[in-house]
Amino acid sequence: MHALTENTEDAATQFDFRTSPDQYRHWTISIDGPVARLVMAVDEDSPHAPGYELKLNSYDIGVDIELYDAVQRLRFEHPEVQAVVITSGIQTMFCAGANIRMLGISSHSHKVNFCKFTNETRNAIEDASAHSGQTYLAALNGTAAGGGYELALATEYLMLIDDGNAAVSLPEVPLLAVLPGTGGLTRVVDKRKVRRDLADVFCTVEEGMKGKRAVEWRLIDETVPRSKFDDRVTEKALDFAAKSDRPTNERGMSLEPLQRTIEEDEIRYPFVTVILDRIGRSATLEIKAPDADAPASVEELKKQGVSFWPMAVARAMDDALLHLRFNEPTLGTLIIKTSGDGDRIAAYDKLLGDNQDDWLVREILLYLQRTWKRLDVTSRTTFAFVEPGSCFVGMLAELLFSVDRSYMLDGQLDDRPAPVIQLSDLNFGVLRMANGLTRLETRFLGDDESVANAKKLIGTNLDAQEAMDAGLVTYAPDDIDWEDEIRLLLEERASFSPDALTGMEANLRFAGPETLETKIFGRLSAWQNWIFQRPNAAGESGALKLYGTGKRAKYDRGRV
Amino acid sequence: MHALTENTEDAATQFDFRTSPDQYRHWTISIDGPVARLVMAVDEDSPHAPGYELKLNSYDIGVDIELYDAVQRLRFEHPEVQAVVITSGIQTMFCAGANIRMLGISSHSHKVNFCKFTNETRNAIEDASAHSGQTYLAALNGTAAGGGYELALATEYLMLIDDGNAAVSLPEVPLLAVLPGTGGLTRVVDKRKVRRDLADVFCTVEEGMKGKRAVEWRLIDETVPRSKFDDRVTEKALDFAAKSDRPTNERGMSLEPLQRTIEEDEIRYPFVTVILDRIGRSATLEIKAPDADAPASVEELKKQGVSFWPMAVARAMDDALLHLRFNEPTLGTLIIKTSGDGDRIAAYDKLLGDNQDDWLVREILLYLQRTWKRLDVTSRTTFAFVEPGSCFVGMLAELLFSVDRSYMLDGQLDDRPAPVIQLSDLNFGVLRMANGLTRLETRFLGDDESVANAKKLIGTNLDAQEAMDAGLVTYAPDDIDWEDEIRLLLEERASFSPDALTGMEANLRFAGPETLETKIFGRLSAWQNWIFQRPNAAGESGALKLYGTGKRAKYDRGRV
Repeated sequence: MHALTENTEDAATQFDFRTSPDQYRHWTISIDGPVARLVMAVDEDSPHAPGYELKLNSYDIGVDIELYDAVQRLRFEHPEVQAVVITSGIQTMFCAGANIRMLGISSHSHKVNFCKFTNETRNAIEDASAHSGQTYLAALNGTAAGGGYELALATEYLMLIDDGNAAVSLPEVPLLAVLPGTGGLTRVVDKRKVRRDLADVFCTVEEGMKGKRAVEWRLIDETVPRSKFDDRVTEKALDFAAKSDRPTNERGMSLEPLQRTIEEDEIRYPFVTVILDRIGRSATLEIKAPDADAPASVEELKKQGVSFWPMAVARAMDDALLHLRFNEPTLGTLIIKTSGDGDRIAAYDKLLGDNQDDWLVREILLYLQRTWKRLDVTSRTTFAFVEPGSCFVGMLAELLFSVDRSYMLDGQLDDRPAPVIQLSDLNFGVLRMANGLTRLETRFLGDDESVANAKKLIGTNLDAQEAMDAGLVTYAPDDIDWEDEIRLLLEERASFSPDALTGMEANLRFAGPETLETKIFGRLSAWQNWIFQRPNAAGESGALKLYGTGKRAKYDRGRV
Repeated sequence: MHALTENTEDAATQFDFRTSPDQYRHWTISIDGPVARLVMAVDEDSPHAPGYELKLNSYDIGVDIELYDAVQRLRFEHPEVQAVVITSGIQTMFCAGANIRMLGISSHSHKVNFCKFTNETRNAIEDASAHSGQTYLAALNGTAAGGGYELALATEYLMLIDDGNAAVSLPEVPLLAVLPGTGGLTRVVDKRKVRRDLADVFCTVEEGMKGKRAVEWRLIDETVPRSKFDDRVTEKALDFAAKSDRPTNERGMSLEPLQRTIEEDEIRYPFVTVILDRIGRSATLEIKAPDADAPASVEELKKQGVSFWPMAVARAMDDALLHLRFNEPTLGTLIIKTSGDGDRIAAYDKLLGDNQDDWLVREILLYLQRTWKRLDVTSRTTFAFVEPGSCFVGMLAELLFSVDRSYMLDGQLDDRPAPVIQLSDLNFGVLRMANGLTRLETRFLGDDESVANAKKLIGTNLDAQEAMDAGLVTYAPDDIDWEDEIRLLLEERASFSPDALTGMEANLRFAGPETLETKIFGRLSAWQNWIFQRPNAAGESGALKLYGTGKRAKYDRGRV
């Protein structure tokens, strides 16, 4: 355990996102045929950091790390699971939301990172319902308050027990002077389409709502008497399961422990190495190409398990991005590099692209999609450097379109050949951004011709000039300029205000249409970040700080 | 003149938005046939408040109040103007953007309000180009930096003089640690569709860009040698003018001075009275119905000038909303009431609805639309109370769908009849929100049936129960509950954190699609508000504070 507050000296490795069901303290998974139950029974004496107790099924980052793990395992390890019921193991309380005392003592950056991670996990739950044939339901056997209701909102069907007490509520504004910022406001009006004036009422009523009115206002889908609750939950879960296309006769992919070695300035995973430059304030993530040819068939792929290269890369990048976010806040620039045999990647891409209707291939592609999205929303500057020996092909070329800028060497630095990049089918429809477009569609917004031209280049090795002509990289310095240009770029970027960069990047990265997800990360999270800075919430007399002390918050009454 | 900083005691009437060309200090309007020139030559010795000089055509709220007035007058007073060229009266500098020293000494709330107003004015410029047949062009006869370039981005065509020096730039991030927050980031990627990695480069290059590259990157539309600049500007302006549908043989509507009386607790305009309750921290805006029947024809309407009732209401509400925003920051709740003969309003609505292709009727409707939008984005809680004697009909009923909640008395309080509301055609397509939908479409998002049902009710007087059944009001208390319910509502709302309410309302009001405008007010402005709070920008060692002192800002290097 360790502190979450500002000025902790030993920041490194405070947060570890690797876990497994045998280590869970707060959740249990039980599976009965096509239906899994994910039961939350938070151990109040096991907070992730000292200073608070996790009463009333409230959660902190530790609880959410387990949830994230459980959601992943249900997808990969359990093809037979077609519906997932989230419920509580504690009488009368489904979930009280994020732990307030934890929020009160957390630094601004921990609050923001915590919310981003919880949002990503809830988006992953929706992604499973929408794309994996694994539909989530919320069996609210007690009150779902704040983040607890927001968790329920991420499922497709909300059943609330009718016991005279249980309610759903978003009491953040009246009680805590912050927003229901884990998607709550967005999902209430944009997903569940609660009328906006009714949403205004709901979000200011501390005790929330229940019964018929909660159904009429669309806050929940149904209310069920206690005596019939379990049966009705099973019935609805089986209904959803019946619509699933997941196979019942397949074995899952076991998510064996992720191999990782953390040293002072280096983190190593299979196929990914992260080099930390604390003086230059950057981290370089180098992804290595497969060390063997692609499996000949999906059956062969399945035998490889988590060592199947795209899966190994997704797991390593997922963990590395989370590790850097939470443990290395001052490394403001992430640099993406690749190395190895690009032709092999093209073969892996083809295997995945050709077998998208296989459940496991679909899961791997969706996981890659979620991981590249995690890079998109990471509040660090991201650059890609295309150097000799690199292999930005297909699913790795996609990273060129996620980063803020890409630099490709035009020519040679030594006796290795000049670098090339290559597109694959995966760049044109499978790996979408949060805005619903591919990264190339976003890059060439309103310019369909450039997207069509890029499509014609699939499978062709493109040198720096060709990549520039096709608009696929930002700059292509030659060998004389390369080193100086990269050095100046990194120095300049590190000299800017981290906050201004975060805001700028958040606005430039997501041109085009907006979706629930972009609204959550853009509009809702930005407002919550603002409120998290305001004395009315986070000051010494703010509501977050004083919650539970019996003292009343003092507000500056000026509206801004 | 008066201070902008925090803790000014005498806040009242610091900001007056009424002006006219004879009072302008910073702008001149000249008209030649169908083309107007709006020339910015900021008087550096006439800042709106003491403490800074407006060097290099930089602007403050005073400069922008004049611009807003000029844009309004060109639309209403000059039907013959079909294209407007914005240019500079100062050699080599088009506009240096918002005055940095002013921002450095301004309170957080002034910075936020100032940005919101400048954004609204730039949106009004785009609105004129899109809907009024009055297209704006930017003749950049010198450098357009920061907010100067953002002003140019609000026009439809950007011409940059090719004199070896003039450039366009967004130096906010590298120089000031804040965002180009007046629409700049959004318009670069979403309107002009600059590729996002190129936008990243552009927004971090202090000196900006010019020449061929600026055209290739879509930052400007063309670059023109000095010797040909004036001719080319005229040529392009005439091109745009040729496409306009504005009449050449009509007289404009003279925007005579707005009558206003400000007293301690009351502001009076023709047809609008504002009552200030400083103890309860609310303001009540009461709109009165017309005191005469609607004119029989558009010709009669035109004779009435600004005393034409819908025009008088729009002007009064526009001024009142701005006055309250800037001068009464602690009045956190705005209450909308109406009084008078609703049937008369229905007749005015019909006159407007039936004559939408008349240029002046169109202008009046667009002005109403902009004014109701100003209410939508005002960061105050908004309620509407439908009481006996009220006249929420058509264009005023629209306010029921702008506010956060509406309360309608079910029955009578005295011998006056129970209140009714009434819809008109204007509620179904003419008065759109920033998200591009009507307020009823937003209210009933994803529920087309309720919109269709509401449409069937056009022209029918609806009592409280009927209004509730149609989903048009939030609550309908009876005479016994009315007074208590309203009192408790206002007390409760006033007890909440103003910041949390602002964030909540900003997220609940704009469900549905996003547009340039909603992106600017939601995503971009929220991030800017956050950055305006961060020490890296606004702290004593922040970049905004230290700009021009020769000292370098010190940044907290943590990325959040």
